Amino acid sequence: MMEKEKWRKIEQLAKAWTIEAAELLQKSFENTLTITYKSHIADLVTNMDKNIEKFFIDKIQNTFPEHRVLGEEGYGDDIQDKSGIIWIIDPIDGTTNFIHQQSNFAISIGIYENGSGKMGLIYDVGSKNLYFAKDGEGAYLNDLKLSKLDKAALSEAVVGVNATWVGPNKRINHENVQEIVRKSRGTRSYGSAAIELAYVASGKLDAYMTMRLSPWDFAAGLILLNEVGGIATKTNGKPIQLLEQNSILAAKPGLHEEMLKHLIK
Amino acid sequence: MMEKEKWRKIEQLAKAWTIEAAELLQKSFENTLTITYKSHIADLVTNMDKNIEKFFIDKIQNTFPEHRVLGEEGYGDDIQDKSGIIWIIDPIDGTTNFIHQQSNFAISIGIYENGSGKMGLIYDVGSKNLYFAKDGEGAYLNDLKLSKLDKAALSEAVVGVNATWVGPNKRINHENVQEIVRKSRGTRSYGSAAIELAYVASGKLDAYMTMRLSPWDFAAGLILLNEVGGIATKTNGKPIQLLEQNSILAAKPGLHEEMLKHLIK
Repeated sequence: MMEKEKWRKIEQLAKAWTIEAAELLQKSFENTLTITYKSHIADLVTNMDKNIEKFFIDKIQNTFPEHRVLGEEGYGDDIQDKSGIIWIIDPIDGTTNFIHQQSNFAISIGIYENGSGKMGLIYDVGSKNLYFAKDGEGAYLNDLKLSKLDKAALSEAVVGVNATWVGPNKRINHENVQEIVRKSRGTRSYGSAAIELAYVASGKLDAYMTMRLSPWDFAAGLILLNEVGGIATKTNGKPIQLLEQNSILAAKPGLHEEMLKHLIK
Repeated sequence: MMEKEKWRKIEQLAKAWTIEAAELLQKSFENTLTITYKSHIADLVTNMDKNIEKFFIDKIQNTFPEHRVLGEEGYGDDIQDKSGIIWIIDPIDGTTNFIHQQSNFAISIGIYENGSGKMGLIYDVGSKNLYFAKDGEGAYLNDLKLSKLDKAALSEAVVGVNATWVGPNKRINHENVQEIVRKSRGTRSYGSAAIELAYVASGKLDAYMTMRLSPWDFAAGLILLNEVGGIATKTNGKPIQLLEQNSILAAKPGLHEEMLKHLIK
């Protein structure tokens, strides 16, 4: 199969499966959700996380047996290297919102080939907004092509940052984060990293920072950001490692540099 | 006119005018917005705030000449007492979101008679969600009647609080707020007090706290909360003063008491 046609088929199926999965999630609100707990009480997992991850893995394994899958719930492959095509999937990003709000959660799918981002897809299920990007072909919010991000200054920026990082914590000097909060136009927090990265890519937020994300939280978002000229690194300015937990600073050009100056001292 | 019929007419018109105003706001996204600045740079005001406030005042004055209007933009009456019927209106609550996101902003209308809340209406324009309550007749999200709020504990609560109050500030001991952040299940911040109060009333947030709201920010939300058994006071536990700036702590029963213990020491 020609390279271009291969990716067109992957795009078509990834989108169709995502819409199908979103319908299963919406339908689940009519049933009682069985909630189980992971290590931290805030990290609620429902039976739907598991079902949706298995749904994607079945589809992918049946259609593309040579692809591998890395998923939050652990039903995918045990992935130690970046070779070949890897789907990095979060079946429900923002599980707490899924349970408490039945909105502000997303399906996030990043597809990488030999470690290079090829396709990113973030579907905000509640609002039915699909954020999609394909390597070299731009990023879209539904049918709307997203503009390249303009430079921004912190004093005019709306920054996504959770209150956790503004008080004393083990991962970052909270006084540096407080500086950013004070110097920004305002801050927001939505409880879904995938949605917050999609908001940066679409200009709804000027920046987003957080201290602890797993590959499935950011894999799709990085590809979206790359297509619109957004900058993403760890909060120490170093490159994000695809298969590890990372801190993330994602921002418009200029703003990324300005925020780093507050974070690295 | 009979009392009940009078309020039925007010309800019908308030809803119709709100939908009409929302359409004007949506249409404005197609035009360039002329943005002017108020005292603080974060407090952006567009020509649309002013137009929409005037739109409501015209409608109200023509239909109910004996009613008074208190609005954020100051085109209403100079209100020093609570007698008679007063419409308290925020034409765009969440102006920064209106400009940056074109979503997560609301039209908020609270109608009071002799200081007593009669009708509250918060319209989340982007999502087309209408939160509505009428004194003694319950609260609604669109056609869905909202349940009475259950008791909640902080350890299981999602709390709406902006990062501003989690760092050093002049209005509250930020270390008390940090305690709440640490002990909660998680925090969120949406940048629209009206939407955040509507989220508490509909159970999407378990609590919301902020240090500085004007009457038009909370007038509708308080009526919604009252109908579902939510508790709202200042953050020192004292009653909210309708015509003044107030801090606000709005929460589910039980949770309100638990949060107050952290805030008052």
